[in-house]
Amino acid sequence: MIKIFIFGITGKIGKLIIKLIKINKNFIILGGINKMNLFFFKIKKYKNIFLNMKKNGVLIDFSDSFLIKEILLISIKYKLPLIIGTTGFNLLKLKIIKKASKNIPIIISYNMSIGINLINLIISNINIFLIKFNFDSYIIDIHHNKKKDIPSGTSLMLSSKIKKNNILSLRIKNIIGNHIIYIISNYEIIKIEHFVINRKIFILGILYSIFWILNKKKGCFSMYDVFF
Amino acid sequence: MIKIFIFGITGKIGKLIIKLIKINKNFIILGGINKMNLFFFKIKKYKNIFLNMKKNGVLIDFSDSFLIKEILLISIKYKLPLIIGTTGFNLLKLKIIKKASKNIPIIISYNMSIGINLINLIISNINIFLIKFNFDSYIIDIHHNKKKDIPSGTSLMLSSKIKKNNILSLRIKNIIGNHIIYIISNYEIIKIEHFVINRKIFILGILYSIFWILNKKKGCFSMYDVFF
Amino acid sequence: MIKIFIFGITGKIGKLIIKLIKINKNFIILGGINKMNLFFFKIKKYKNIFLNMKKNGVLIDFSDSFLIKEILLISIKYKLPLIIGTTGFNLLKLKIIKKASKNIPIIISYNMSIGINLINLIISNINIFLIKFNFDSYIIDIHHNKKKDIPSGTSLMLSSKIKKNNILSLRIKNIIGNHIIYIISNYEIIKIEHFVINRKIFILGILYSIFWILNKKKGCFSMYDVFF
Amino acid sequence: MIKIFIFGITGKIGKLIIKLIKINKNFIILGGINKMNLFFFKIKKYKNIFLNMKKNGVLIDFSDSFLIKEILLISIKYKLPLIIGTTGFNLLKLKIIKKASKNIPIIISYNMSIGINLINLIISNINIFLIKFNFDSYIIDIHHNKKKDIPSGTSLMLSSKIKKNNILSLRIKNIIGNHIIYIISNYEIIKIEHFVINRKIFILGILYSIFWILNKKKGCFSMYDVFF
Repeated sequence: MIKIFIFGITGKIGKLIIKLIKINKNFIILGGINKMNLFFFKIKKYKNIFLNMKKNGVLIDFSDSFLIKEILLISIKYKLPLIIGTTGFNLLKLKIIKKASKNIPIIISYNMSIGINLINLIISNINIFLIKFNFDSYIIDIHHNKKKDIPSGTSLMLSSKIKKNNILSLRIKNIIGNHIIYIISNYEIIKIEHFVINRKIFILGILYSIFWILNKKKGCFSMYDVFF
Repeated sequence: MIKIFIFGITGKIGKLIIKLIKINKNFIILGGINKMNLFFFKIKKYKNIFLNMKKNGVLIDFSDSFLIKEILLISIKYKLPLIIGTTGFNLLKLKIIKKASKNIPIIISYNMSIGINLINLIISNINIFLIKFNFDSYIIDIHHNKKKDIPSGTSLMLSSKIKKNNILSLRIKNIIGNHIIYIISNYEIIKIEHFVINRKIFILGILYSIFWILNKKKGCFSMYDVFF
Repeated sequence: MIKIFIFGITGKIGKLIIKLIKINKNFIILGGINKMNLFFFKIKKYKNIFLNMKKNGVLIDFSDSFLIKEILLISIKYKLPLIIGTTGFNLLKLKIIKKASKNIPIIISYNMSIGINLINLIISNINIFLIKFNFDSYIIDIHHNKKKDIPSGTSLMLSSKIKKNNILSLRIKNIIGNHIIYIISNYEIIKIEHFVINRKIFILGILYSIFWILNKKKGCFSMYDVFF
Repeated sequence: MIKIFIFGITGKIGKLIIKLIKINKNFIILGGINKMNLFFFKIKKYKNIFLNMKKNGVLIDFSDSFLIKEILLISIKYKLPLIIGTTGFNLLKLKIIKKASKNIPIIISYNMSIGINLINLIISNINIFLIKFNFDSYIIDIHHNKKKDIPSGTSLMLSSKIKKNNILSLRIKNIIGNHIIYIISNYEIIKIEHFVINRKIFILGILYSIFWILNKKKGCFSMYDVFF
């Protein structure tokens, strides 16, 4: 039985994790912290839970970037692997995460879907040829209008791998996640599009991550390591 | 100065080669065979041309599959590299081509565009993961209604690299070449699309091939070798 | 309070209606028939319910085409408006429905989404110009692989309004409903695409239909009458 | 025989008109003004040509907005119908054009393709329902990077007919003209896309306009009047 503790348990992703893990006998959720508790979070209160998680326990973080220090402390103190889906870390915090990963295994990712990571892999592989053959490129990122970050973390991640490109962002109604990459030369167009049908795809990624991280001793990993 | 001889010189591609090479000082077209002459083709008649091509000469074949033996004979006899864009070879003829390539360098390709070969490369790289993560896939091939082969050679080529897939073909008006690959799991869709704006993209591929093949001694190559 | 009775109450749409009407104070579901009961359906058993529905009552049918006669009898006897989403009626049954509509109001539709009916309206409006300017057209219908009818009823409906067209059908994973109409001349392409994000769109159509039909005396209507 | 005079005869469209009219026995080009001559344009010099055009003569303007007064003067003086494809007129100039149309027939259009005008017609027809059913919308306009106006005149025209919408513009390589309209509610997406394969589509629109305007006495018309 794998024991889970979720930071950000009442968020969109948190709720979905609960829903899907409920019907899966391999997992048990031992606890979580919601938005309200984040500010008054006291490690002591959860001490017994974390002790109890020592074997087969995993921390999952879909909360807010400001909490990362406390989460890393817990992770190190109780030797609990950590999966981070929270975004918006500054360089300093990313350094702290990197440092912590010398003691514990950490997976950090902006987008836990298989498809986006597959496209990420594709872009890494072909970028050298896009330069060689002088392709121009554009990324269009379309998301629901409650998404705060413009452009999306995912499009920034994809963009960082393609030389010479721009990002256009649409925020509109209920689109979960839609990214389109235009790759254009004078005589041809390549269009690579990703469309999320259901948020469950992100949970699927988390489940893969949990199984994968259990055997790791330490290190900072991405979904690339998990999936491919 | 690179000397070119074209089999199928009055076809769509043949004409375009002439048009584009005319304005390029690196090339000269020394001769060609059109559809009419194919049936009465006598090597002797062209002997002087082929002798003249010995240095920096390249044969280009966009004619018809039945002529391949004669073309290979010329290629071997006069030591002329050969670029084959003709399609529809049966297994026997493919074997003969392969055998000839032990003496001369040959490039053979169904589709000389950079984009389609890039997508071919992508598919080869990710297919193992499509299987691992249980994606289904469909290829849609859309071409002008004068195209004889259904499905297109290109979609067959792409299809051969993806496990479990079907091809749908549309033949409609003036579309030069449009291929769409749907890759779908239960929760997400990846769509990879290629669209030809202008037939010149094929000629560009031929020009790359010509420069590339000049330095080769022997061997059977694909556009993969040329481009990547 | 609007009183609902659902034929096919345990189907995909039936369940969704229950779920959405539960949280809506304007509606109450007085009863329903599921797949099992369909074969042993006795009107008598439900007599009191139907009597009780006389004011503000609506029958909804998402069951099976073979039950239509009984449903129409109830509808006429108890003067209850009827909304039909069931498909697969033969000409004879369609005639019976038409005849019944001389006494009661009936809405019948293959697809209750706003978007598809909007596209249906578009096609009806422009078809005369597609003929005039010699456009060719193709409809691609993409649905989950549990959908039984190929091509989809919706694509047949759209197809019937466009002269000279073909339908290609893809059945693949979890796609709820995706229709693409290609309209192509020699020099330009128009693509009209509909994509269902969530099945709730069909329920929304049913809710519109219920409000709309309450004031009608008799007649056979489509979603066109409801929406536009 | 229809007699044509072209303002902007050496522009992209001007050249194409010449090329296509050459092989059409119904037309003869009597003259034209290119970019160089525009600044030193003297009506007198062309007097005989305009007199000669009195029967079956049409003026075509794909030049620059600053020349419109002179063109209108000629049009009125010699009673020659006028087709305007030039863009970038300010309100004052549009007023002058309108006023001139009380004496001569004028067609003015931002986009002479059948497809864009068809989509324009569609949008006009459905906009009332987009508002009623609370759809959001976005227009993406993709053009070659030599196009000066951002966003395109066509996307502004389409945009003016849809309530609540935004335009995103991509300028990239050799795309002649590509417009995509996203229409999205919480549960469904409608995408209407137009893609120009070949600039000839604009010339086709001009040919339709020429035949159409010959029988008109006066008035200011759009491609809507010509096509539908």
